[in-house]
Order: sequence, then structure tokens, then C-alpha cells
Amino acid sequence: MTKELVFGHKVPDTDAIVAAKAYAYLQNKKGYDVEAVALGEMNDETKFVLDYFNEKAPRIVETGSNEVNQVMLVDHNEPQQSISDIDKLEVTHVVDHHRISNFDTSVPLFYLAKPYGCTSTILYEEFNRFGIEIPAELAGMMASAIISDTLLLKSPTTTKYDEDALNELVKISKIDDLQEYGIQMLKAGTNVESKSDSDIILGDAKSFNLGSKKVTIGQVNVVDLTDITKRANDLKVAMKSDNDKNSSDLFLLIATNVLDSDSKLIVVGEPKESVEKAFNKSLDENDMMDLPGVVSRKKQVVPPLTDIMN
Amino acid sequence: MTKELVFGHKVPDTDAIVAAKAYAYLQNKKGYDVEAVALGEMNDETKFVLDYFNEKAPRIVETGSNEVNQVMLVDHNEPQQSISDIDKLEVTHVVDHHRISNFDTSVPLFYLAKPYGCTSTILYEEFNRFGIEIPAELAGMMASAIISDTLLLKSPTTTKYDEDALNELVKISKIDDLQEYGIQMLKAGTNVESKSDSDIILGDAKSFNLGSKKVTIGQVNVVDLTDITKRANDLKVAMKSDNDKNSSDLFLLIATNVLDSDSKLIVVGEPKESVEKAFNKSLDENDMMDLPGVVSRKKQVVPPLTDIMN
Repeated sequence: MTKELVFGHKVPDTDAIVAAKAYAYLQNKKGYDVEAVALGEMNDETKFVLDYFNEKAPRIVETGSNEVNQVMLVDHNEPQQSISDIDKLEVTHVVDHHRISNFDTSVPLFYLAKPYGCTSTILYEEFNRFGIEIPAELAGMMASAIISDTLLLKSPTTTKYDEDALNELVKISKIDDLQEYGIQMLKAGTNVESKSDSDIILGDAKSFNLGSKKVTIGQVNVVDLTDITKRANDLKVAMKSDNDKNSSDLFLLIATNVLDSDSKLIVVGEPKESVEKAFNKSLDENDMMDLPGVVSRKKQVVPPLTDIMN
Repeated sequence: MTKELVFGHKVPDTDAIVAAKAYAYLQNKKGYDVEAVALGEMNDETKFVLDYFNEKAPRIVETGSNEVNQVMLVDHNEPQQSISDIDKLEVTHVVDHHRISNFDTSVPLFYLAKPYGCTSTILYEEFNRFGIEIPAELAGMMASAIISDTLLLKSPTTTKYDEDALNELVKISKIDDLQEYGIQMLKAGTNVESKSDSDIILGDAKSFNLGSKKVTIGQVNVVDLTDITKRANDLKVAMKSDNDKNSSDLFLLIATNVLDSDSKLIVVGEPKESVEKAFNKSLDENDMMDLPGVVSRKKQVVPPLTDIMN
């Protein structure tokens, strides 16, 4: 069988890296010649995870068609999130937990999507389906991906399947205390002290067209919200500058405390009253707002804002 | 749980009808409230299958949003092949064996595609995965869908999974002799005597843009190719008329003998030399050509023609 590459999305998070490694392991066991690669540098959280389990980082690639004809995608399907020359490659397999959008193939393929909190949960079920044993280190990494995507099962994207998979993977892995390890791991990804204002507002930002307005929504994880609020003025300058540069109307930065699952919202641009209506509360004098219990941009921020602005 | 509809593609074939019934059965066992419906009248082959197993035909619907908010698709995903108001419905599940094209969702969903010869083969594996027993009548219908899609395992789209599933389903069903039943069933779908010229050329026709030309390719199953060749002159008049009506350049009619897996090609329009180059042989004085071993438009006709004309 000819070699294929398997990778997660650009700006990879822990699930994108781990799911690629897990799927490569599974497919190699099934007889495919597959190498897990990454579409960018790992973030601090993922580095912590690989260090902890003494695993190698996947090779970073810019393009695929210079070395293979066929690829497998994990944790994404939309072409703008994928490898730059995806249009020159045949996608043979996809395992994902996102909506399907702009994904087109010319031939039939294997595609498995489930509306779970994490791709690694789907892969855990695939290992079981084929009766393939998960090595302890891989189980630890897959548990870490579930912890990352679900914020230790607290995100509203969490399903009972994620919870079941996490508990089983922890048993297989060498993780002694799930809560202790999970918090240590999540904390590793929250070092904002060393990050520039621009890195904080744009490190995980997505753009949306809501009604007639262009809206940018960034999110940053912390273990202490004052790490963000104490530099709010500087961050607002950076957000205004980004709005001007990209002709964006409104910038929302969601700072999320991964320990207690609360968020603080910082808003720059107009219409601010749409944000107030969406969450049914007022911004304070610094254009900030507490959002207790809010952790998911996809499930808890975009939908109410869409309802008001459309 | 609120009710959902499940259906196969428009102009339903046996797999589209049977896969909807099989998936509804599976999902009802899993606790979903699901009804199998059809997006059109059943063909003669499917009527034979339901009669044989004494099963009811699914209700035919034109639209879905007047009765449900959510639907499940089997044996298709492309919106132009689906229910007319698909854009007003949320797709929660898809089980399919085709390429993925123009399929977009706003939220995550369950999507299972495998590059097999038949959707019912994938569903057979899903029944096994959940440990749900397949009743004898349903097993017989699922076996029939595999026989239909793979022409009794002779089509090049057939995989070992289709073969395994068919053999197991036949054991569960009350089918005594697979070959005898399969030929009887395939013959039931080949009664061209009663069909008009227009029904024969357009009953299973698809349009393609190849290079700068518009090409229509129809296919009709028979048990005796002379059923078609004896009325070739009348069929060519109908094909020319259809080319004129739709500004199409070239019309290929593939008459396929389902018993011996050979086809006869009838060609109307230009460029005829592209057809000759694609199959590396000449058309006879009646613009016809034997294509021994050719049964699949998707795998054996469209690709060589695409290569020549693009």
C-alpha cells in the first residue's frame, strides 16, 4: 500500500496533534502505511502533553503533494483549515467532530463524524471496534485531548461518550489522578505572561459575518482572569487596531478561566448594544462583562449573538 | 425525542428504499422516533423485493419541513438528489457510500461513509456494531439491495465487505438459493418491453460537462441485449431529440446485460471519435459498440471519457 499522511487542522491544538498520532497508530495496525504530521507548531499545552508522556512531536509539513497522493484528515474537514495543497490530494479517510462545510470529493471515501466533544473520543471507539489495544502513552495523550477539548468535561460540548472514553483511557494510561493531571495540563496552556497583546487577541480568533456586520471573536484560556483584565487597556488598543486593519466592526475577546469555567468578555467596536442584548446584561464602564458558566464560543457565544444580529 | 424522517435519494432504487427501512429499524431500536419515507415511486425491481418479503412500501413525501425539523439521509448526500426542502431541515445522520459533494451543515452531525458497493452493507456492519438482530425479512431486503447495487457481486464497485455482508444476510433471510433469487430479482427490474423510448433513455440518465461538451449518459438493465438493439433506431431518434432539447452534444446509452455483465453502447451526437478513443475501439455502422465486462457508468464509462474529453 502506498504511503499516506494523516494530520489535524492548522494552528493545531492538542486534539489535532493527538488524533493524528492515534489514527496513524490505528491505521498502521490495520496495515496502512501512514505517518502522522502537523500543520504548524504545537502550542504550550500540547508540548506539555508530549513531554509528559515522553512522545515525539510530529514532523511539521507545509504541503503534502510533494511526498504523497493520498491523505487522511482528523479533527477538521473544511479546506481552509487544512493543508495548503489539499486540492491536489485525494482524501481517503476523515474522522472529525465538527460540522461539514465546503468539503467535496470526486470519489467515495471513509468518513466518520460524530457530534462528540473531541475527535479522540471517536478514535477511542474505533480502537474498540477493531479490538486494537491502546498503548499506555497513547491512552494518556488521548485522555489529554479529551481534557483539552472539554475543559475537564465542563464544556457544554461534552457528551457521555467523552466522559466514558476519558475514564477508560485514564485507567489504561499512567495518569494517577485525573483532576490533578488535568488542571496541571490546562494550566500549561495558559501562560499569557510571555505572550504579546496581538498573540492573545488573535491566537485563537475567528471571523463571522453576522447580519451586515463583520465580527471577530478571539478566545484565550487562563487560570486567573486578572492576568487578562490587568492589561485590558493595551488589549483594547490591539483589538481596535485589528478592527481597523480588517474593516471589522466588532471584536469580542473571551478570556476563559479553565479552572472554574467562567469567562470575562472584552468588547471593542460597534454595535455594543447587540452584545448586551445577546447576553441580556450591561457592559461595565470598561466595556467588559462577566459571563459565568460560559466556556464555548461555538455553543454559547456565537449562537446568541447570531440570533440578535441576523 | 422528536420525530425524524429517514430517506434515500430521489428516483429511488432498491438500496435507497431498503437502506431507509433498515436505518429506521436500527434507529428505532436505539430509541429514536424515526419513519422511513421515499422520495418517489419504487421501480419494478424494488416492487418485486418488497412483494417477495411481504413488506410495505414506504410513504412517498415531497417535502419534510411540514412535518419534522430533523432528517437522516441514506445512500446520498448531495442536496440536488435529496428532498426538495432539504435547506429547511437539519440533517442529524448520514449513512452513504458515495462521494461527498455540496453537503454543508451548520452543526456537527453523525456521518458514516465507507467506499463500499452498497449502503446496506454499511448498515449490516452497524447492526453488528450495536448487537441488534436483523429480522429475516429485513435481512432479505438488505441482501437484495446488495445484489442490486453490485449486480450479484459482479460490478467493479463490489468490495469484500459487500460479499461478506451478502453471504451473512442470505443466511439470516429466507432466501434458499442466492443465485436463483438474485437473477429472478434483477430480471424483475429489466422489463423494457412495456417502457417507452423516452423512459428507457432517461430512466437512469445523468448529465456531465466534459471539456467544452455537455454529455448525457443513460443506462438501462436488461437480460437480453436484443430487447434494446432491435429498437435502436427509435431510441436514437429519442436521444437526438433529447440532445436538441437540452443543448447536449453527445448522448451515450449503456444497455447492460445483468446476467452476463456485458454492455452495448449506443451513441448519438458528437464528438463520436472521443467515445472511440475512450474505449479504444470503433463504433459500428449503427453507431453501436460492444463493451464486454463493462457494467458501471461511475467506474468504467465516465473516467475514460473524462480523460479523453478534458
